[in-house]
Amino acid sequence: MFVTFEGGEGCGKSTQIRLFERYLKENNIDFILSREPGGTPLSEKIRALLLESKSEMSAKTEFLLFSSARVEHVENVIKPALDEGKLVVLDRFYHSSYAYQGYAGSLDLKDIEKITEFAISDCKPDLVFLLDISYEDGMARKSRDEKLKNLDRIESKGKAYHDAVRRGYLTLAEREKERFVVIDATKSAEEISKIIISEFEKRLRKGN
Amino acid sequence: MFVTFEGGEGCGKSTQIRLFERYLKENNIDFILSREPGGTPLSEKIRALLLESKSEMSAKTEFLLFSSARVEHVENVIKPALDEGKLVVLDRFYHSSYAYQGYAGSLDLKDIEKITEFAISDCKPDLVFLLDISYEDGMARKSRDEKLKNLDRIESKGKAYHDAVRRGYLTLAEREKERFVVIDATKSAEEISKIIISEFEKRLRKGN
Repeated sequence: MFVTFEGGEGCGKSTQIRLFERYLKENNIDFILSREPGGTPLSEKIRALLLESKSEMSAKTEFLLFSSARVEHVENVIKPALDEGKLVVLDRFYHSSYAYQGYAGSLDLKDIEKITEFAISDCKPDLVFLLDISYEDGMARKSRDEKLKNLDRIESKGKAYHDAVRRGYLTLAEREKERFVVIDATKSAEEISKIIISEFEKRLRKGN
Repeated sequence: MFVTFEGGEGCGKSTQIRLFERYLKENNIDFILSREPGGTPLSEKIRALLLESKSEMSAKTEFLLFSSARVEHVENVIKPALDEGKLVVLDRFYHSSYAYQGYAGSLDLKDIEKITEFAISDCKPDLVFLLDISYEDGMARKSRDEKLKNLDRIESKGKAYHDAVRRGYLTLAEREKERFVVIDATKSAEEISKIIISEFEKRLRKGN
């Protein structure tokens, strides 16, 4: 089974992944937790390139580099783990590209989809937890966490951009109903974690 | 005007580019000569990654990395030169990807085409000189040039592969007749150079 977590800035994704990880450990469920670009020596090199040259590269270059790291991640980390029967948990996957670079960014969503289909070879998550939050609520949580000073380039793009990301995510959830679970991220961390675990167990019982 | 040179191993491409370059200089034609991945700081880094990690990466990763360097090459080198009214001469461009990785390699040609269209944004050559040669004749020339010991990974793939590359190139030339000039590369270097210059001047007179 393959589970991903998605959501805009300040949605509480890190907290939820930590709580889900704790639950999995307590229940002796064999899993791997990963995040893109994905922990192979080559993808780490691509990651370094993305970080050090970000400001000078075009959106297309950035997306293609990201996609190349995604191929390595899928082929060397995700697929082998799934083949061994492990649960794979990912902090963001291609739906982030769709939302950030397609719906909210300068690239054509159709191009992003085509290249992603090429890169992932049908390795799609069974379950996507989308932590849905408005720009205002997300920023409020960020500043509560005193992280405002550390906002990176993406996070500093302002309301219109983040609204577009959010709408993009919700459109994806509508399009892929069987896969997405949309959760109101203004609820308490405990409530959200309960919903996630309950949905996960429901799917586990259904054998998917 | 935008001119590329294509062809299989041992086709004499380097010699012809050198001769064409001399002709352009003698005629005071303003041009740039480039080759992929294309002479920007970022694409040099991508090139280094491609070289140092070649053996461990999948064909998809290799193609996506190559395509990301191609975006940078097109946007920062080729398009600006064309916009300034310069002639651009390229030693290989995307038709090499089609022939080597699509027709002869493991990737789906349709995928390669879609991703290339994304990467190049319709920046296509007006004129492609395809130096056509059989595997046997190409290898004979290579060994005459005493380069056999230096055959790299691609060149050492054998007859079936190189036959597929050649057929791929010829199929492309058939598909894009207005763009391709197919030249029998077993002719003498002088004869070939004359054909190239004559075709180039014909197009120049036609204003394309």
